[in-house]
Amino acid sequence: MTFTGLRKNEPGLLLLAHGDGGILTHELIKGVFQKYLTAPELLALTDAALLPGAGTIALTTDSFVVNPLFFPGGDIGKLAVAGTVNDLAVSGSKPKYLTAGFILEEGLDLALLERAVASMAATAESCGISLVAGDTKVVERGKGDGIYINTTGIGFKDENASLGYERIEPGDKILLNGGIGEHGVAVLAERAGFTFDQTILSDCAPLNTLITPLLETFGPAVKFMRDPTRGGLATTAKEIALASGRDLWLEETAIPVRAEVRGATEFLGLDPLYLANEGKCILITAASMADEIVVSSAVFRQGKGAP
Amino acid sequence: MTFTGLRKNEPGLLLLAHGDGGILTHELIKGVFQKYLTAPELLALTDAALLPGAGTIALTTDSFVVNPLFFPGGDIGKLAVAGTVNDLAVSGSKPKYLTAGFILEEGLDLALLERAVASMAATAESCGISLVAGDTKVVERGKGDGIYINTTGIGFKDENASLGYERIEPGDKILLNGGIGEHGVAVLAERAGFTFDQTILSDCAPLNTLITPLLETFGPAVKFMRDPTRGGLATTAKEIALASGRDLWLEETAIPVRAEVRGATEFLGLDPLYLANEGKCILITAASMADEIVVSSAVFRQGKGAP
Repeated sequence: MTFTGLRKNEPGLLLLAHGDGGILTHELIKGVFQKYLTAPELLALTDAALLPGAGTIALTTDSFVVNPLFFPGGDIGKLAVAGTVNDLAVSGSKPKYLTAGFILEEGLDLALLERAVASMAATAESCGISLVAGDTKVVERGKGDGIYINTTGIGFKDENASLGYERIEPGDKILLNGGIGEHGVAVLAERAGFTFDQTILSDCAPLNTLITPLLETFGPAVKFMRDPTRGGLATTAKEIALASGRDLWLEETAIPVRAEVRGATEFLGLDPLYLANEGKCILITAASMADEIVVSSAVFRQGKGAP
Repeated sequence: MTFTGLRKNEPGLLLLAHGDGGILTHELIKGVFQKYLTAPELLALTDAALLPGAGTIALTTDSFVVNPLFFPGGDIGKLAVAGTVNDLAVSGSKPKYLTAGFILEEGLDLALLERAVASMAATAESCGISLVAGDTKVVERGKGDGIYINTTGIGFKDENASLGYERIEPGDKILLNGGIGEHGVAVLAERAGFTFDQTILSDCAPLNTLITPLLETFGPAVKFMRDPTRGGLATTAKEIALASGRDLWLEETAIPVRAEVRGATEFLGLDPLYLANEGKCILITAASMADEIVVSSAVFRQGKGAP
């Protein structure tokens, strides 16, 4: 998760913008990774690979490099669990097992590490995923940033889910379960030392406990889901548009943005559409089903959702 | 993988030695991680968690932080595949799927990244594992070390394997499939810029293609396997002793060490018993089976093994 803008481009050298989820990230993935790593599950570029086995296994991996490690509403440990759990949940699978790989910087305050690990454990417990394998590496001072965590999540396909880019059709509605930009602003404000009248909390939360019952109730009426994390709602919408071959229309006035987030982004010169969310999901359904899903499902009630 | 010795201990701060696989690593795992992360699969502290599902799934995770990224006989990409594949193989499972999480440092030469990714792909291909999910993060200059890679491996339990600490009995023999210390010396020499008369190559290699046929032939005669990586043969033997409640005897004269490795470790003041290996496996079997296994299995022929 990096928010720094583009620097003068030295061809052949990695830029921070290669990590922001935008055009350069895509160029890096296409130009370097997809040239060699060509498994169809990987090339699908979905949030989790669905793997045939005895039962279909869902698999996803994510590294968390957030600075600061602790921010209003969350911390790297909570984020590392929720982020991976959500990638599994929006892929239509039930998260089951988690691995954690820690890259720790020499000189780290062990009390901070303990807080982060305790937070991971509490978050995993709250959403019913078991952390079953781990690894720890220590790097020299100045070669890390306190704590980096990779989590890999394994789930099993939810039999009630039938999600896919190919199911998106003209006339479908795009639903969003709450205000955008909260995680991005919370982290940026904490990093910069800004304080606002009202503390902005990250929306970081595992969504599987809400998505599983939603799929149980609505089943195939849910055509597609994604969590708009790095790159924000705008980048995620663009990715869905590219992958589905459909144009997506977002009505700016219909996108909820909390007043305090709006104020902070205006002050900081940022667009909430491009800021990371860590507890939001986009859901695509037939227009005829949209109202019922928004009214009757906990994931939208919790997020005080709006279409 | 860190080789730096203990610094003056500032209580409460992370030391490089917390990452060397020895006493401080164990203290860190017990004192911080196991306090909160308590899944029985995790507490078993084996190389891979075996997970009941439809069929038993094996799961393991490892982060690779080697410096330099390229060394005689291997590179971080090859290492990241082989290391995780070997953890699955010595746990008695057949490696099937791999995820890769990259943490890249701003300013990295993209040509180096491409070499590492190409090496990952070639190694994965050579040992029949599919890389099915990936993630890339970019961190600011000075907050990484070029390339860090986390790989998480998924396998399925090999029906021919019945391995376990509890199967180790008095009188069993400990087999080792080749010379020790080669990876450790290759990396250290490259990092320090030392050259020896004969270049020492890392033994980095995936072992599953040799272990699967070994288990097919010998089945339950193989009681236990481990790969002596970080911390070397001595640390791994100590871990097996602690976990099995048995004393392990290693006959120093029976442990193969290539002449050039012996020379280099004497010059560098290191003990090959504590240096990392990345293509070796320890195998424990009844004394009556030891000769047959050494003579007739490819994993020992390849390593020019000795008991």
